[in-house]
Amino acid sequence: MRMYDLIYSKKLGGALSAEEIAFWVRGASDGSIPDEQSAALLMAICWRGMTTEETLALTLAMRDSGKRLDLSSVPGLKVDKHSTGGVGDKTTLILGPIVAACGVPCPMFSGRGLGHTGGTVDKFAAIPGLKVELSEAEFLRSLAETGFANSAQTADIAPADKKLYALRDVTATVESIPLITASIMSKKLAGGADALVLDVKCGPTAFMKTLEDATALAQSMVDVGKAHGMQMRALITRMDAPLGWAIGNALEVMECVEILRGEHGDSELAQMSFRLAAEMLVMGGAATSLEAAQALVQATISKGTALETLRRFVALNGGDALALDDFSRLPQPGQVVEVRADRAGNVAAIDGRALGILAMDLGAGRRDRNDILDLGVGIRVLTRVGQRVEKGDVLFEVFAKAEVNIFSSFYQDTITFSTNSKACDDWLLATIS
Amino acid sequence: MRMYDLIYSKKLGGALSAEEIAFWVRGASDGSIPDEQSAALLMAICWRGMTTEETLALTLAMRDSGKRLDLSSVPGLKVDKHSTGGVGDKTTLILGPIVAACGVPCPMFSGRGLGHTGGTVDKFAAIPGLKVELSEAEFLRSLAETGFANSAQTADIAPADKKLYALRDVTATVESIPLITASIMSKKLAGGADALVLDVKCGPTAFMKTLEDATALAQSMVDVGKAHGMQMRALITRMDAPLGWAIGNALEVMECVEILRGEHGDSELAQMSFRLAAEMLVMGGAATSLEAAQALVQATISKGTALETLRRFVALNGGDALALDDFSRLPQPGQVVEVRADRAGNVAAIDGRALGILAMDLGAGRRDRNDILDLGVGIRVLTRVGQRVEKGDVLFEVFAKAEVNIFSSFYQDTITFSTNSKACDDWLLATIS
Repeated sequence: MRMYDLIYSKKLGGALSAEEIAFWVRGASDGSIPDEQSAALLMAICWRGMTTEETLALTLAMRDSGKRLDLSSVPGLKVDKHSTGGVGDKTTLILGPIVAACGVPCPMFSGRGLGHTGGTVDKFAAIPGLKVELSEAEFLRSLAETGFANSAQTADIAPADKKLYALRDVTATVESIPLITASIMSKKLAGGADALVLDVKCGPTAFMKTLEDATALAQSMVDVGKAHGMQMRALITRMDAPLGWAIGNALEVMECVEILRGEHGDSELAQMSFRLAAEMLVMGGAATSLEAAQALVQATISKGTALETLRRFVALNGGDALALDDFSRLPQPGQVVEVRADRAGNVAAIDGRALGILAMDLGAGRRDRNDILDLGVGIRVLTRVGQRVEKGDVLFEVFAKAEVNIFSSFYQDTITFSTNSKACDDWLLATIS
Repeated sequence: MRMYDLIYSKKLGGALSAEEIAFWVRGASDGSIPDEQSAALLMAICWRGMTTEETLALTLAMRDSGKRLDLSSVPGLKVDKHSTGGVGDKTTLILGPIVAACGVPCPMFSGRGLGHTGGTVDKFAAIPGLKVELSEAEFLRSLAETGFANSAQTADIAPADKKLYALRDVTATVESIPLITASIMSKKLAGGADALVLDVKCGPTAFMKTLEDATALAQSMVDVGKAHGMQMRALITRMDAPLGWAIGNALEVMECVEILRGEHGDSELAQMSFRLAAEMLVMGGAATSLEAAQALVQATISKGTALETLRRFVALNGGDALALDDFSRLPQPGQVVEVRADRAGNVAAIDGRALGILAMDLGAGRRDRNDILDLGVGIRVLTRVGQRVEKGDVLFEVFAKAEVNIFSSFYQDTITFSTNSKACDDWLLATIS
């Protein structure tokens, strides 16, 4: 088998066999196939796509490049969630404790942030002392004892994905539905959960710009998961404005805790987290309908069992659980600067991507993979799309290092005003199963 | 400037600026841009193509990666020829001496063979002692003293092309009209000739399978040459059967000498060589019409001045000029085996590619870049398309090493017979200028 022939075949629009795909993934991982050949094939895949069979074969080859987690020691159906990511997306910190509090084990692996979007691992890392890289034994113990486990992806899960993702990252071949599918699903299949809810973001600031693309990606992932015996369900959700009021790691922890306390219950972030949790509860067998599941979710908030589960998870894994009740124990900024509206108007749009980049520049995110984060900095968004704003109203609070100059105009530019007000509660665009 | 952005832009179908293309070519050459990024961009170019402006910029950037030859010390318009190559294509050895004998200087750089097609350098190397890698001084002296110079491409001409070609070769990105154009034209522009005739091969065994593709490639090269002040003309010629009776280096030298002696004057090889030479003479100002030029060509054959020019070129550059008159001084095979027809019929097609591969396996060509050739081996094709063949007629003479077993059936399989005869004199498919 020659890698050249695989590239040539895909370039002409042909389909690769499972053996050819396994040959490639193995060779790319062990270095016997040079990166330039893998890069050419990746671009040819962006061009010509992959059949469902090819995507399945790629997912399996990547899953089998590493270790598979065995969760059978923990009883019950294990349910995971994956989001394609967006600015302010912090649903894991809310729904994980909720689902676990309802008795459905929730094993999750998360990533670190890169670029304008944050990573769940960084958000958890804002809780002082909390260990975010768990060993397999620690992960299983957390899942068994609290019903919830969250760890940074370990290097031995789907290492071929790590290798290929690094290549895709520098060759502009990240945006390809079969490649995204295989990257996500190889890790999810290796992670050992029985069911998976997908939150596929759609909008001008998300990977998938159109409902058509988002639907295709969701369907592709659902198909691959089902083909391997995983229960699958996908929500397609709107992503343009930041999700919730907090951007930045400690700030996002505060917002999640507030929602678990029962505050902001009607916000988009809360509604989305509750809905995703309800889907997970149905898949996990804790409820027979979405309505019944929503009631269970509400009970974990009103009774405080979800927040208590988060406290136990944090305490078990070395974190300062008191920080969840006393935010002064979380990382703090050097200064807080208010940004006020320089005119009146109705908020038509808030540019999540631009705010994500501003937050990254404050130190909340990484421009380069090795950047060190400042976990206390970020942005509190004090206005919402559809809201009437008067000149002088506070639009943002900027949590920054002491020595940083905050330019109000940078933040003003992220908001678009219009003369008529528009409500914006259509966060759920479609469901796929 | 970031290479990632160039790849991303081309992936989406955008056009790169001249500065971006220069940045890439420079970075690919000096190693500051890793091969995987260049490979991804090459595949994206195969996908999205390049505008005329981009192709021009790529050609210039590659030309300027190395040295440019200054031929101004030799008076007159210098005319070059380039062929996209095919099995048995040996027109350089015929038309170079013809054009030079008419007083038009003919400076040519050639390549070594790889795969089923031969290389002009290897054919010249079959003349004992002839130096095929000339220094700049030797090249200029040969051009000044004999009107003809031929050398293997030196490493300092368009080194970026060498680098990118090696990448294209392993990433299935050779077949792209803008990439082929820039590869050929960068070297031709650096070579310093004033005019260039292109012989673009078209057919099932050539790079360009259809007249449409061949025309597009020819037009692309003509446009780029003209934009840089080169006189340009292209012939599109049919390529399926081998060109001429000889495949293999010493055999091809013999065939060329025979044509320069006035033999096989009505063969496709002779007609094509004479026509290309006539085009070159018109461009070089030696004749005002193609008809007048054809008369000059014929005179060099009938008076023997073309053959004499070849003798002088060979002698000047260390070769055994007597070998041109006494073929026993050329490399010889260990055995000559006749392959006879196993049935009667009319020859409908001769598979040039298959015969090229057989000749390569005999040792006339290279499967790998570092293979050592046997210059005396090859195939003499004794039948032509359209000819009636009786069972037992000799189809091929195979010139092989003494120890090789020749399997007649391999050669029979390269000929397709039909019940009706078909003449085949449509070698010239189109002209472009």
